[in-house]
Amino acid sequence: MNMAKNNENQTLLPEPTIRRLPWYLSYVRMLDHLHVEYVSSTQISKELNVQSSQIAKDLSFLNIRGKTRIGYEVRSLLVELENFLGFNRQHDAVVIGTGSLGTALMQDHGLEHYGLNIVAGFDVRNEVIGKNLGGLPVFDINELASWQREHHVSIAILTVPVERAQETADLAIASGVTALWNFTPYRIKVPEDVVIANTSIYAHLAIIYNRMQNTYSDNRQG
Amino acid sequence: MNMAKNNENQTLLPEPTIRRLPWYLSYVRMLDHLHVEYVSSTQISKELNVQSSQIAKDLSFLNIRGKTRIGYEVRSLLVELENFLGFNRQHDAVVIGTGSLGTALMQDHGLEHYGLNIVAGFDVRNEVIGKNLGGLPVFDINELASWQREHHVSIAILTVPVERAQETADLAIASGVTALWNFTPYRIKVPEDVVIANTSIYAHLAIIYNRMQNTYSDNRQG
Repeated sequence: MNMAKNNENQTLLPEPTIRRLPWYLSYVRMLDHLHVEYVSSTQISKELNVQSSQIAKDLSFLNIRGKTRIGYEVRSLLVELENFLGFNRQHDAVVIGTGSLGTALMQDHGLEHYGLNIVAGFDVRNEVIGKNLGGLPVFDINELASWQREHHVSIAILTVPVERAQETADLAIASGVTALWNFTPYRIKVPEDVVIANTSIYAHLAIIYNRMQNTYSDNRQG
Repeated sequence: MNMAKNNENQTLLPEPTIRRLPWYLSYVRMLDHLHVEYVSSTQISKELNVQSSQIAKDLSFLNIRGKTRIGYEVRSLLVELENFLGFNRQHDAVVIGTGSLGTALMQDHGLEHYGLNIVAGFDVRNEVIGKNLGGLPVFDINELASWQREHHVSIAILTVPVERAQETADLAIASGVTALWNFTPYRIKVPEDVVIANTSIYAHLAIIYNRMQNTYSDNRQG
């Protein structure tokens, strides 16, 4: 079943599918580097440990069809995946909270290859306001609203201390941000029309500790 | 139902529960800072947008019981959560791949409050080998096996380029590491007895982009 309406990515994809597509992309990018021309879902399945029927289903959301016996053309699959995932379109973002994680994200040019264009940082600390981090300016958080009137950035990356998480999110949303990428362990409440994704690095640590104690391999990836 | 055998965290917790416990912890830490003495599951429910029956179920894994009408003692809940999640025990780790993300993790002393003690970095690049990052030494990746014979670190944090992910994981496992925290978008294959947790920041970006296009709020947290 192909639920994709067009290649502009208008479909609300199931989250497990969205989680798997970047695995396919990273594998296909490697194949492309090695000048491999075709790849079958069986090959992807063997490499990534995902059932090939699942791969075929996931890829059915894309505007691409594999050829019998030959499989998918690597270059086309690469382009379709990047396009579908939005990695080849530029999405402007601000980092709020320029501590060590926020600074790392501002300096990590690898994110640009995934369509994320960080344009500025915001903070409350006088010692960083007015400075440059990774070539990007850091402004006073109190200037966010007025700054946004000119820049209309849609994504705010939250790397503030946990006790500031909700108020900072509220501030960002009031300034017109429509998506939050939350790196704090706090469960932020947002209005229905605001997108939120949580990168819960502390939850992942808890999972590691728990699984280590049980010497059990959790191969579910997430 | 209380599946917890004791407070040494011997139970293989359901992953959704492990993901929620750090939210409770961050809220309870805030209450403790504010010198609040008791909190009910209704209060937690209202604050974190999780059903109170779910909260009671999640907390039943811990050695703590709420009192009727009063709720949970904040300080006890805090200690039990930290203990249960393993955040108050020290887990030694190495960072493999000291690029911008790896460096940020080595410099982020916040992780210590979650039981993660990074002791060294490893890299392939001559320009960083022998240097210090965040007060920690960076060694040649080829020295990992011999270094491990003395240090027996159990966790390897993988922040290498995606095309090095699998080989680096294999090397770390061969050196005696029993848990991998994978920050690459590659789906690493590991033996059954090795724990792996994936922090798929690229998948989270894809989710943000997809949800933004659909102006749909995905409040499922993860």
